[in-house]
Amino acid sequence: EIMGYPDFPIPGEGVSYIPAAEMLAFLKSYAKSFGVTSVINFNHHVLRVRPVGQPTEKYTWEVMVKDLPNETLNTLHFDFIFVCNGHYHTPYSPRYPGQDSYRGVITHSHDYRRPEPYKGKAVLVIGAGPSGMDIAYDISKHAERVTLSHHLPETPKTIFPDNVTQRPDPVNFTVDGVVFKDGSRATFDEVLYCTGYRYTFPFLSVDCGITVEENFVQPLYKHCVNINYPTMGFAGLPFYVCACQMIDLQVRFCVKLWTGGVPMPSRKEMIDDTQREMEERFQKRGYKKRHAHMMGPDQGKYYADLAASAGLVPLKPVITKLHNESSQKFLDDLTNFRNEVYKILDDETFIQVK
Amino acid sequence: EIMGYPDFPIPGEGVSYIPAAEMLAFLKSYAKSFGVTSVINFNHHVLRVRPVGQPTEKYTWEVMVKDLPNETLNTLHFDFIFVCNGHYHTPYSPRYPGQDSYRGVITHSHDYRRPEPYKGKAVLVIGAGPSGMDIAYDISKHAERVTLSHHLPETPKTIFPDNVTQRPDPVNFTVDGVVFKDGSRATFDEVLYCTGYRYTFPFLSVDCGITVEENFVQPLYKHCVNINYPTMGFAGLPFYVCACQMIDLQVRFCVKLWTGGVPMPSRKEMIDDTQREMEERFQKRGYKKRHAHMMGPDQGKYYADLAASAGLVPLKPVITKLHNESSQKFLDDLTNFRNEVYKILDDETFIQVK
Repeated sequence: EIMGYPDFPIPGEGVSYIPAAEMLAFLKSYAKSFGVTSVINFNHHVLRVRPVGQPTEKYTWEVMVKDLPNETLNTLHFDFIFVCNGHYHTPYSPRYPGQDSYRGVITHSHDYRRPEPYKGKAVLVIGAGPSGMDIAYDISKHAERVTLSHHLPETPKTIFPDNVTQRPDPVNFTVDGVVFKDGSRATFDEVLYCTGYRYTFPFLSVDCGITVEENFVQPLYKHCVNINYPTMGFAGLPFYVCACQMIDLQVRFCVKLWTGGVPMPSRKEMIDDTQREMEERFQKRGYKKRHAHMMGPDQGKYYADLAASAGLVPLKPVITKLHNESSQKFLDDLTNFRNEVYKILDDETFIQVK
Repeated sequence: EIMGYPDFPIPGEGVSYIPAAEMLAFLKSYAKSFGVTSVINFNHHVLRVRPVGQPTEKYTWEVMVKDLPNETLNTLHFDFIFVCNGHYHTPYSPRYPGQDSYRGVITHSHDYRRPEPYKGKAVLVIGAGPSGMDIAYDISKHAERVTLSHHLPETPKTIFPDNVTQRPDPVNFTVDGVVFKDGSRATFDEVLYCTGYRYTFPFLSVDCGITVEENFVQPLYKHCVNINYPTMGFAGLPFYVCACQMIDLQVRFCVKLWTGGVPMPSRKEMIDDTQREMEERFQKRGYKKRHAHMMGPDQGKYYADLAASAGLVPLKPVITKLHNESSQKFLDDLTNFRNEVYKILDDETFIQVK
């Protein structure tokens, strides 16, 4: 229900959690249906993007692309640009002392595909975000034992199988395992980092005026407009969101500003707006810098603000409500929640039908 | 005397101000003498530089270069990298209201070569830094009249020819001229922006962790080490300096840190050091952000600090003293100072011999 686009829902009923292959087919049908597929230059690798001209006057975007099949380098120019490499692009793996001496296998959830290879093994899963929870549960059906290491303030309600134990963060690696913050230690054949991602923009030149500091991308207006060069938009940076819904809204927001549907705010207005939001996040909510683009419970407010600021059709509140419900169920009952089926009654209301 | 390298002075005596062609020949002989020329890949255009790996562990530099004669794209890897595109790379021209309607010719000092084309014309020179002063004087010998527009707190002592007048900053352009801040107006055939340069790094990826904000390059340790990825050095960012002398010192500084001759300071030490210096610059000295890398009167202190921090042979104090003397003479007697001849007696002392 919530993973579709506002104007292009996922077809079918009777099932709320769909497998990855079906989601991919949906995205392809979306692109084809709106005539997008035919205008994409596939097999073109963007090497470099930079503004040509000064931000106070007319400037354009110079884009250097490598045409992969032909091995040629082309330079193109555009009036507007969307950066869309998403929030799950580059895996992040913290380093722990002694890690180089560890003789087991270390992988990141980014490269995780199937649980079968973990059959009979002792596995450490670091991180209890959605990936860590999901993968720990998934692997536990095959592994001999799984340890889920995390710093959540309270243990998730989900009842894991008996071969799953929970531990605090690792302090250091040993030759064959890990020492945890509570002083306990254990041996592991494999370690799986479920420690999230970092925003990277290898193709953006420093001249674009964008920086990433502790996973906080700056300076952005409402998480999607480059304040230094406002004809550069970012679609999909925020995480723990209803992705397609939000991206649709962000793109409509940028296009409305770019085409003069609403006036582009001044540089100062944009900076002040962002500062207000970040003060709220960092000071009142106690978020850290790396949570600058984390939505989760804040997503409804963000969507409403985007729509109101540019006079756009807002997202249906029921979408956010259903996503929040699903996120809670994920924490509370990881083993069963994917069998549940919902039905949307109106823009505000959903019911659980199974 | 001061434009040479510490270990490779400019040969010859009896003249202190040498023409550009001689300086170029000197630089070429320097490169050849140390075997540098033969290891440079000329005609290779660097498209993109980015770190591969995380800053807390071992990382390398991926460099994409276009081999211009062969039109091929190569990807190379390095352990260390120096960014050397200097401080006079990209001209900066402020915009004034009405500029688009002005029918005369607008040029930047970056593109200025000779005064003859200005014969008989009315010329506005904007900016009274070294370029503005020099060019206004140079052009005045040929132009009908020259106006030097600037915001220096006091008028330079230099006695300009009678056809040079001084005015405050422009407020706006008209069809055939300019209105100044004091309300006066004048017509001009040509306008020459001597308004300086902006640091640009088209080839540095955002992933390098470097930003430029109002011409302040951050985060750098002692104006030459990328704090986020300390194996990236910057040679030659500071301006109003003894360029070759300073660059030689900066390179020795970076190499000493990189090779373990002195320990690389921690991230926090580097950030604190920079913050202390910038607080002094911005708060005590009243500098603006765009003066973050301006040396001038501060150069001696900077050179001494670089040398002391890494146990390097310092620059000779006489070099800085002579540069400061020359800079003052430039302001006081632009028309004659280049005929003067100095002689260095020892590391501390110079005399004027003509």
